[in-house]
Amino acid sequence: MTSVSKTSASVTSASMPSATFDFAPLLPAGLPAPAAKWTGLAKYSFVGGNNDPDQVPVEGLIDAASAVLHREGKTLATYGLASGPQGYRRLREFLSAKLKRDASLACSADDILIVSGSLQALDLVNATLLARGDTVIIERDSYQGALNRLTRLGVNTVGIPLDREGMRMDALAAALADLKSRGITPKYIYTIPTVQNPTGTIMPETRRAELLRLAQQYRVPVFEDDCYADLIWDGKRPPAIYAMSTSGGVIHIGSFSKSIAPALRVGFIVAPWEMLSRMLALKTDAGSGALEQMVLAEYCAPHFATHVPKLTRGLRAKLDTLMEALNEQFGTSAEFEEPKGGIFLWVKLPDNVDTLKLYQAALAAGVSINPGPEWSTDKTYAGCRLRLCFANPSHDQIREGVAVLAEVCRREFGVPARIANVEQAARTSI
Amino acid sequence: MTSVSKTSASVTSASMPSATFDFAPLLPAGLPAPAAKWTGLAKYSFVGGNNDPDQVPVEGLIDAASAVLHREGKTLATYGLASGPQGYRRLREFLSAKLKRDASLACSADDILIVSGSLQALDLVNATLLARGDTVIIERDSYQGALNRLTRLGVNTVGIPLDREGMRMDALAAALADLKSRGITPKYIYTIPTVQNPTGTIMPETRRAELLRLAQQYRVPVFEDDCYADLIWDGKRPPAIYAMSTSGGVIHIGSFSKSIAPALRVGFIVAPWEMLSRMLALKTDAGSGALEQMVLAEYCAPHFATHVPKLTRGLRAKLDTLMEALNEQFGTSAEFEEPKGGIFLWVKLPDNVDTLKLYQAALAAGVSINPGPEWSTDKTYAGCRLRLCFANPSHDQIREGVAVLAEVCRREFGVPARIANVEQAARTSI
Repeated sequence: MTSVSKTSASVTSASMPSATFDFAPLLPAGLPAPAAKWTGLAKYSFVGGNNDPDQVPVEGLIDAASAVLHREGKTLATYGLASGPQGYRRLREFLSAKLKRDASLACSADDILIVSGSLQALDLVNATLLARGDTVIIERDSYQGALNRLTRLGVNTVGIPLDREGMRMDALAAALADLKSRGITPKYIYTIPTVQNPTGTIMPETRRAELLRLAQQYRVPVFEDDCYADLIWDGKRPPAIYAMSTSGGVIHIGSFSKSIAPALRVGFIVAPWEMLSRMLALKTDAGSGALEQMVLAEYCAPHFATHVPKLTRGLRAKLDTLMEALNEQFGTSAEFEEPKGGIFLWVKLPDNVDTLKLYQAALAAGVSINPGPEWSTDKTYAGCRLRLCFANPSHDQIREGVAVLAEVCRREFGVPARIANVEQAARTSI
Repeated sequence: MTSVSKTSASVTSASMPSATFDFAPLLPAGLPAPAAKWTGLAKYSFVGGNNDPDQVPVEGLIDAASAVLHREGKTLATYGLASGPQGYRRLREFLSAKLKRDASLACSADDILIVSGSLQALDLVNATLLARGDTVIIERDSYQGALNRLTRLGVNTVGIPLDREGMRMDALAAALADLKSRGITPKYIYTIPTVQNPTGTIMPETRRAELLRLAQQYRVPVFEDDCYADLIWDGKRPPAIYAMSTSGGVIHIGSFSKSIAPALRVGFIVAPWEMLSRMLALKTDAGSGALEQMVLAEYCAPHFATHVPKLTRGLRAKLDTLMEALNEQFGTSAEFEEPKGGIFLWVKLPDNVDTLKLYQAALAAGVSINPGPEWSTDKTYAGCRLRLCFANPSHDQIREGVAVLAEVCRREFGVPARIANVEQAARTSI
């Protein structure tokens, strides 16, 4: 190449075509649709894993930031601090103690990988185990972020129905047998056993044991997503599935998004080193954010155990407001099971309601909801269902938002038939 | 599935096989090798983009954390804060002003996407433009993280040699013509024009114009990685290539890793909305770490312009120590161009030195270096070259580390032939 002359340099930059560069011909097939410009949160926002702004422990985080930066701020000069690529060691040590105390899960700091939110955990587990065309088992109604990832990866999902105790083991056994008869080994069984998203159920210990037995029988790993497990009204939870396994065929993930603040983007993975070392090799981001890890470790070690019950009391009160508002505005048209924890309610409306259409109409009226089909492998079953998150809006916003939602739903679908109160009737008649 | 009986539940968990679960049969083809357990930094570490621990503005970051959390801490309850998915608005506003001032780059906060370090920027640009089998143009000697990503994606790289002014335009023109003659449109031209990694060169404005002219002529986007651009000894830099483009066919990325602290993991992308909206759709991580964005914005707005010159003076002094130590220990065996900024030196040793072997031998002696072949598309050319990062070790560590490296190199390859001083000779004769 060195012998090429520079004749082309005689063309000056003034002659450069000024037409706008067109990237479109360069884009590969299969890209998702471009994102729309962000236009702000809805006035009444019942979506996303957002939390209660008044419950962010701001003063505690300030003190923690000050203390940890005074002591260790200089370590920010090094990627991965002085703790290596698995994440800030004090945070892993806190998690080791917390998991033992809360989830009966015995693991050391070396068994934990800190990640940028549990979404990165999903990405790393998927990248380690999945190829296009693979099959996984998942709860029929499940986390949208997990479902979307599997769709994008071209992975087949088998949805297992749930009851009040979570994933149904009869259906799981049947699905495993059916897949085996077709020569398919699913790559994992993904479950949110402790405050299931979106149904809010908690899988009892006996069913966890049955799940493990089936998983071991069919040699399928269990992928346990425990990211809501801290938010239980009575604070009591069964042992983690990871803790109950005798074979080590479980990958466990969790997060600080729900217990402290979602914008911090700190989650974690607990897994056998055989898998952790694979995920670490795929985690090519030079570490997750150090300041957030440091501040969380400094705050959580002394305060986590007292902060969480206070947080859940506030969330429980908001749930009560939401259920009251639904009963008042929708009457018997809205059916739901009272969840044992979490930040969301999974609601069934009458069969003629299409929650994808309701979502559009409600958004135009300033209310955002999660339409059921986006949170389920069974779009028909979930067609009249929706998820309502109650942690972020205030009590007043919950009441007002549900009233607006009922108004929109009645206008679009004729349900709820009856208006809850005179003031509401007067407002809608204007 | 609902009709399946629960006969299998009669098998108790006591009969569960206790053998360790074997994940190996489930792993897809093409995974990278598992990570090794981390064993700590080398005693004399000349690798990685680590910075000077004494130059982390710890007190300023503490004050910033306290101020911004007092004012806006509650917003941590919401994913993406109140700023939407492109990142904390005040940080984007700071960047907009900074890029205008330093790089003559006019863009608004809406043209900027905050990401988790410039590595995520590389991932997003690659995911938006590249498919397996594609071709990209890259500087022959380039950033290992960029090269590794392209290898993993199965993308072909055409390496363009550099001279003291960066990527050579005669070679670029020849490569573009050659590819065109073979019907190949490269997906982008990746360049680190401002303190090139690893050569430390700065591409002058005239050459940037020529690069843009060629890119436009062949309809190839320019991917400008400016992550070292703040660290220039005299503080003067040419306009960003992005700023000079009249067509908009440039994607610009940058980082706070080098100017503030690498462990913070905050970078950014500036691109036309056509591309930014595509990257945003692929950024499914629910936002980058908010606390780090908030603290950076609060610290940088008043302090960035005074912090950086102080930082570069310190780096420049460490570079002097490194060059003196190399001259003293290696004499004429070590050849290098004095870089105009940055945190690394690209060193050529005699042709018989294999820096991949030197790397192994030096590591055993407590010195870590970046062997040239990992930083180049031309493994032969780079076989006797190495990259030495000088920001993290102290002046004493630089002197001692280079002495140990010279000792190892002489032992393994017979160069440098002459020992620098008597004390050194005495030590090696033990």
